[in-house]
Amino acid sequence: MLRQTLYGEYQENQGGSGRREATRLLTERQIKKHGNHPRSHCRTRHGRRSHGQNGYHSRHQLGYYSRQRRRQSAMEGEEQDQTAEPDPTSSTKKKRSYSKCRDCIAWVQRFLVTRLGEDWIFLIMLGITMALVSWTMDYASAKSLQAYKWIYGELKGKIALQYLAWVSYPLIFILFSSLFCHLVAPQAIGSGIPELKTILRGVVLKEYLTLRAFAAKVIGLTAALGSGMPVGKEGPFVHIASICAAVLSRFMSFFSGAQNPYCYTDILTVGCAVGVGCCFGTPLGGVLFSIEVTSTYFAVRNYWRGYFAATFSAFIFRVLSVFNKDAVTITALFRTNFRMDFPFDLQELPAFAIIGISCGFLGAFFVYLNRQVVLFMRRPNAMTRFLTKHRLIFPAVVTLVIATLTFPPGFGQFMAGELMPRECINSLFDNFTWTKISGSSPPVGLGLSAAWLHPDVSVFVILLLFLFMKVCGSLKV
Amino acid sequence: MLRQTLYGEYQENQGGSGRREATRLLTERQIKKHGNHPRSHCRTRHGRRSHGQNGYHSRHQLGYYSRQRRRQSAMEGEEQDQTAEPDPTSSTKKKRSYSKCRDCIAWVQRFLVTRLGEDWIFLIMLGITMALVSWTMDYASAKSLQAYKWIYGELKGKIALQYLAWVSYPLIFILFSSLFCHLVAPQAIGSGIPELKTILRGVVLKEYLTLRAFAAKVIGLTAALGSGMPVGKEGPFVHIASICAAVLSRFMSFFSGAQNPYCYTDILTVGCAVGVGCCFGTPLGGVLFSIEVTSTYFAVRNYWRGYFAATFSAFIFRVLSVFNKDAVTITALFRTNFRMDFPFDLQELPAFAIIGISCGFLGAFFVYLNRQVVLFMRRPNAMTRFLTKHRLIFPAVVTLVIATLTFPPGFGQFMAGELMPRECINSLFDNFTWTKISGSSPPVGLGLSAAWLHPDVSVFVILLLFLFMKVCGSLKV
Repeated sequence: MLRQTLYGEYQENQGGSGRREATRLLTERQIKKHGNHPRSHCRTRHGRRSHGQNGYHSRHQLGYYSRQRRRQSAMEGEEQDQTAEPDPTSSTKKKRSYSKCRDCIAWVQRFLVTRLGEDWIFLIMLGITMALVSWTMDYASAKSLQAYKWIYGELKGKIALQYLAWVSYPLIFILFSSLFCHLVAPQAIGSGIPELKTILRGVVLKEYLTLRAFAAKVIGLTAALGSGMPVGKEGPFVHIASICAAVLSRFMSFFSGAQNPYCYTDILTVGCAVGVGCCFGTPLGGVLFSIEVTSTYFAVRNYWRGYFAATFSAFIFRVLSVFNKDAVTITALFRTNFRMDFPFDLQELPAFAIIGISCGFLGAFFVYLNRQVVLFMRRPNAMTRFLTKHRLIFPAVVTLVIATLTFPPGFGQFMAGELMPRECINSLFDNFTWTKISGSSPPVGLGLSAAWLHPDVSVFVILLLFLFMKVCGSLKV
Repeated sequence: MLRQTLYGEYQENQGGSGRREATRLLTERQIKKHGNHPRSHCRTRHGRRSHGQNGYHSRHQLGYYSRQRRRQSAMEGEEQDQTAEPDPTSSTKKKRSYSKCRDCIAWVQRFLVTRLGEDWIFLIMLGITMALVSWTMDYASAKSLQAYKWIYGELKGKIALQYLAWVSYPLIFILFSSLFCHLVAPQAIGSGIPELKTILRGVVLKEYLTLRAFAAKVIGLTAALGSGMPVGKEGPFVHIASICAAVLSRFMSFFSGAQNPYCYTDILTVGCAVGVGCCFGTPLGGVLFSIEVTSTYFAVRNYWRGYFAATFSAFIFRVLSVFNKDAVTITALFRTNFRMDFPFDLQELPAFAIIGISCGFLGAFFVYLNRQVVLFMRRPNAMTRFLTKHRLIFPAVVTLVIATLTFPPGFGQFMAGELMPRECINSLFDNFTWTKISGSSPPVGLGLSAAWLHPDVSVFVILLLFLFMKVCGSLKV
C-alpha cells in the first residue's frame, strides 16, 4: 500500500514509465478486489460510509488522476475502518452525531474530489487561464508597440529626438524586463524549454514551477514583446503554461483535499501542448510539439489531454480576439490566402522541396551557430566575467545595437525596420510577385508591404538583409 | 556484448522500452570506446580492415538501424580479429590475395549496408510501394464499380434481370474475396488492426506478416472494395502496410547482408502511419493514427520516420492520381469547399460542438453495439457452429441482404442506394441547403447529390435511413 503513495511522485525516469504503468494496473486490480468487499470489514457505524465509498468505486470514470486520488482516499478510509474495528461497541450518542457530521464533511469532500479531481475540469481551467494570459499579453504588447510607433511618428522631422525615442523605448522595456526577472525570479530568465526538458527527465529544479516564476515570466515577457525586439513568444510561453499547469494542479489538489500532487510529467506535457496551442491558436501544433519535445517515449494517455486542453485554449484565445474586434471570425492567426480550387501546380513541387531542404540545412546551420555563440559566451574570460557580474549590460548593448540598426531613417530603411515583428510576419504572408513590382513604381494599396520597397535598393536585397538581421538578432541568445 | 544482439529483438513489452533505450545508450558508449582504439588490438593484416571500420564508426549518421547493424558487424569483425590474433605470423602470399579479395567483398558489403541500411532509403521504398499498391487497388476497384453501374444501367427496364445483376455482382466478388483469403492465408481475414496491436505488444503471431498474407489481403480487399459493399479500406490497409514494411525490412536486411532484422515495433509503427497516410493521402492523419493506436508509450524516434514515409507515400499516391487525370493537381482526397475569407460565424460554433459531442456518443454507442454483436457471434450455439463450419455462408447472406436493401428501384430509392461508397462521401461533402431544395422541385446541376432527393420522401428521412443502413452494414463485422 505504501507503494501507492509513491505513485504520483515527482520523479520520472525513462525506464520507470513502463514499470509505473504496470504498477498502476496492478494496484488498480488490487483495489478493485478490496473495494468490492468493504462491508465485510465494517458493519456498525461505518456501514453508511463504506457504502458510499463502495458506490464511489463502482463508478468507472475516465479521470485517471481522480481515480488515483479516490483510490487513495478510499484506502485511507479502509485503514481507518480497520483500526476502528477492535472496539465497535463503544459508540455513544455524542459520537454518533459527531460521526454524522464527519460523514457530511466526508461527503462534501468526496464530492469536491470527484468533481475537482476530474481531468477535464483541470484541463478546461488550464485552457481558459492560459488563453486569458496569452491574449492579455498580446493585447498589452500590441498597445505598447502602438505607443512606440506613435511616439516615433509624432517626432517626425526631428531626427535626433526620433533616434533617441526609437532607441530608448525598447531599452527601457528590455532593462525593466531583465531587472524584474533578476529581482523576482532568476529562474524565469531564458526560454524555459531546456529547463522544462530537464524537469521532464526527472531532475528536480527548484523554484522553476512557482507562482513567482510565473509572474516574473509573464511580466518580463510582456515587456520584452512590447519593446519591439525580435523575441519569440513560443519558448517562454511553454514554460509559462507549464508553471500554470503545475500551480493549478497543486491548487486543485489542495482544494479537493487530497495530498498527492498530480503526476508531474503528465501535467507538464499538457502544459507544453497548451503553451504552444494558445500562443499561436494551433491546438494540433501544440500537441505535436509536446510529443516531439517532452519525452523519448510519449505517454499516449497524455495525448487526448493535450488535445483537449490545447483546443480549448486556442478556441478561447481566438474567441477573445473576435470579442475584441481584432478578427471577424475564428481563423488562423497568420492566415495564408492560397487559391482553394487550384492551390499549386505540380511543376511547382520541386521548388517547394528545394525550399524545404534548404530551410532544413539553414536550420541546422542556425543551431550550429547558436551553439558556437553560447559556447563562446560561457567560456570564462574577462568579458564574460564582467557580463556575468553586470547582467543588465548585455541585454542593454544588444537592444542598443538592434535598435540602432533598425532605425528607419538610418540603416533600417534597407530592412523594413519600421515594421514591428508581427507586422513583418503578416506582410511576409502577403501574396505579391516582387519581380513585377520592383522594376516599376510601387502600386497603391500595398499597405504594410510597402515597407519592403526602397527606391534605390532591390526588394530582394532588403529581404536578405532582413533575414540576416533576424538571424543575428535571434543568435544573441 | 551478448545483450547487444538481443537488442534488435522481436519482443516489445511496456516496461522494457525505457530499459532498452538505456541499454542502447550504454552499448553505444561502449562501442565508441572500443571502436576508437581497434588498432591497438590488430596490427598486421587486419590493419587496413580495422582502419576501414574505424572510419566507418566515426561517421555519426542519423540512421539508427544502420548504426545498429554496423555496430554488430563491427563487433563481429572485432571478434574475428581477436580470435585471429594468436598467430599473426602465419600469413602467406596466397592468403594475402585472399584477404584482399575478402577486403573488396567486405567493402562492397559495407557499402550496401551503409546505403541499404539507411533509414530513409527504407522509408522511401516503403512509401513508394504502398502508394503504388493503394493507387492500384483504388483504380481496380473503381473500374469494377464502374462495370457494376454499367451493367445495372444497361439492364434498365428489365427489373428482374436488374435485381439479379445488382445482387449477384457483389455476391461473386465477396465470395471470391472470402474464398481467396481462406485458401491462401486465413490470417488475412478481418481488419488486421487488432492483430497488429497484439503483435506490437510483443505477442508473436505467426504468418501474419508474410508475403502470402500480403497477397491475400491485397487481392481480397480489392475484390471487396470492387463489390460496392460498405467495407473500409483503412483497417486492412494498415495491416497491408505493416506486412509491406516487415517484408521490405527483411528483404533489405537480407540484401545488405546483416542477419538482424529491424526492430519490429519500429517497423510496424511506421507501417501503420504509411497505411493510413497512403489510404487517404493524409500523412499527418497517418502519424497521429500510429501514435494513438500502436503503443501505450510512443517512441518519439519513430515520429519523423512515420512522417517521412507517410508524407512520401501520400505524395506519390496523389501524384499518381494526377498522372491518371483523376485530379488537376494535388489536393485533398475528399475536398471540402468552405469559404476561406469567412469560414464560419461564431454563432455556429455551439452547433458544431453539439455535432461533435453527439458524434462522440454515437461512436461510443457504435462500439458498444459492435461489441455486443461480436460477443453474440462468438457464443457457441448451433448457428455459430454452423457458420464456423461453412464460412462462406455468412458473408454471402450479409451481401445478399445489403444488396437487396440497397437495390435502387426497391428500398434503395429511400437511401441513395445507387451511389457507390466513394460517391456517397463525395456527395455528402457537397454544400447544399437541403431545407431550401426539399420543398420545391430539385434544381438542375445537382449531379450525384440528386440521388438523395425523392419526390415523396423528405431528404432527411433518406439521410437517416442511409445512416442507419451504414451503421447496420458496418456492424456485420
